[in-house]
Amino acid sequence: MVAVVASRCVIGLDLGGTKLLAGVVDEQLGVHHRAQRPTRGLGTGALLDVLAELVAECVESSPSPVVAVGCGVAGSLDRRSGVVAAAPHLPLAGVRFEALLAERTGLRVAVDNDANAAMLAEWRHGAARGCGDAVMLTVGTGLGGGIVAGGQLLRGASGGGAELGHMVVELDGPPCQGECPGRGHYEWYASGRAIGRAGEQAARDRPDSALGRQLASGREITGALVGELAHDGDEAARAAIELVGRRLGAGMVTLVNVFNPERIVVGGGAVAAGDLLLEPARREVALHAFPVLRDVVEIVPAHFGADAGLLGAATLAFEELG
Amino acid sequence: MVAVVASRCVIGLDLGGTKLLAGVVDEQLGVHHRAQRPTRGLGTGALLDVLAELVAECVESSPSPVVAVGCGVAGSLDRRSGVVAAAPHLPLAGVRFEALLAERTGLRVAVDNDANAAMLAEWRHGAARGCGDAVMLTVGTGLGGGIVAGGQLLRGASGGGAELGHMVVELDGPPCQGECPGRGHYEWYASGRAIGRAGEQAARDRPDSALGRQLASGREITGALVGELAHDGDEAARAAIELVGRRLGAGMVTLVNVFNPERIVVGGGAVAAGDLLLEPARREVALHAFPVLRDVVEIVPAHFGADAGLLGAATLAFEELG
Repeated sequence: MVAVVASRCVIGLDLGGTKLLAGVVDEQLGVHHRAQRPTRGLGTGALLDVLAELVAECVESSPSPVVAVGCGVAGSLDRRSGVVAAAPHLPLAGVRFEALLAERTGLRVAVDNDANAAMLAEWRHGAARGCGDAVMLTVGTGLGGGIVAGGQLLRGASGGGAELGHMVVELDGPPCQGECPGRGHYEWYASGRAIGRAGEQAARDRPDSALGRQLASGREITGALVGELAHDGDEAARAAIELVGRRLGAGMVTLVNVFNPERIVVGGGAVAAGDLLLEPARREVALHAFPVLRDVVEIVPAHFGADAGLLGAATLAFEELG
Repeated sequence: MVAVVASRCVIGLDLGGTKLLAGVVDEQLGVHHRAQRPTRGLGTGALLDVLAELVAECVESSPSPVVAVGCGVAGSLDRRSGVVAAAPHLPLAGVRFEALLAERTGLRVAVDNDANAAMLAEWRHGAARGCGDAVMLTVGTGLGGGIVAGGQLLRGASGGGAELGHMVVELDGPPCQGECPGRGHYEWYASGRAIGRAGEQAARDRPDSALGRQLASGREITGALVGELAHDGDEAARAAIELVGRRLGAGMVTLVNVFNPERIVVGGGAVAAGDLLLEPARREVALHAFPVLRDVVEIVPAHFGADAGLLGAATLAFEELG
């Protein structure tokens, strides 16, 4: 194998509610170095420290000059000002994130919502390549969204659109977490946290299941744990994922009827559950979406899997600053 | 007053579930002749007859040559083929509508969803003029939607998108009417029919109200009747419209969070209720949408009122065939 020397690199950052992924990425989307840190529970200053530290580590490891940083953030951005407008799972609301990150790293920085970034990667190079109309859902701690409509990324008037996790799917439903003042939002029903919650209920309903025994032993029932046990065949864990899959599909009915997309791409950590999650969603769409719109859409896992956000952030940096 | 001779005209048709509006429209959107027919209960052939008859009447009344027909249809179109893909309130599903109307009238015909047409009129000339991102809701018999995203009309992969009335707002809610196989859709909760349904409930709850007396006298409680009585000050009728206004607002929370629009324009017959309907919707958005997105949006009645569909169909004809 001949080692190809990358001519220019960027640093891609995928900043989620649970963890930060960083990578040195070349123009062919090759990843030359990667690093990860937990983000849960950090304050604003500590979070910026971790970001700067990881960028420095990446710059040092890069095989060629780093020309920019791209960062996808689990939050709503005002793209006109680079300020994070809302971030239910991160301490960044109101923070001049783009400017601060540029100051701390000494590099040019492009910032977007993390799911917009993931959509960009999948649209340019992945599962939605060539589509004029496509939707991305990132099922991580929360639920993020990205949209391509009529051949362009949908951003909205101030760049804060595509918050698909904050569609109302239940009138007078439970209140959102974080600073979102909404109720009955899609994210409550279809996200890593929703899988954890459904898993906890399933564990109570079936104390003899593997999931039930984990609960009895005092372990926290997270989406990741439910996913592992479902993968191992535990029926209670599978039922929990199926319930969330159906609700993921109910929101997709809206997406199909509104965006008439060719592709709905599902990424984020929870997509590790694969068809256990996606098949119930597909069934829901087959049953309840407008038949003529349903017939033109495919529901597929992200091509880049859990790397979509990281590679999308890198793509953003190349396209906007490269 | 000097009569201006219109150089060219088109015929605009607004085909809803209850009635057909037709008008001769010039390039300055002046309406030179208008006509109306009921559509409820007609079969496919009879409906096409009524359309051809009204077009002929308009052609005869036109002050100048008619160059094309534009038609907005209360249904989902496949714009690639001109076939009506789905039309919950009209007998047109699967009908090659554009071709048949051209055959029957001998004129070139452009067809789109009625709410897309209304959005086009409001965007080019009305309440959403100059907006890069805007949403239109037409609250008529049903609930139609039109979207401008990133400076273009959102149509979707096969031209059937923007079916905002068919967003899921209640998981496992009541089934849709007509051939939509969905459940718990926005239209069920926010439409002329929803106002009628809420009015009937309010009439039962308050038999001493004007609305209650109408119900007791055996009269059908329609959205229009509720609107009239609310306008006259009947508390039961006002409560019914307020409930529907709140639910209209719940769906707008989704629209604000997803499209980050500068303007949500509300048209269709029910907008005659004015702020009785729109104020509760605005309050709901103020309480529950992402604050930063809520702050950039205005919720306004259609500039063209109940004419938005007709004028949008005419605009479509001028833009596509003029």
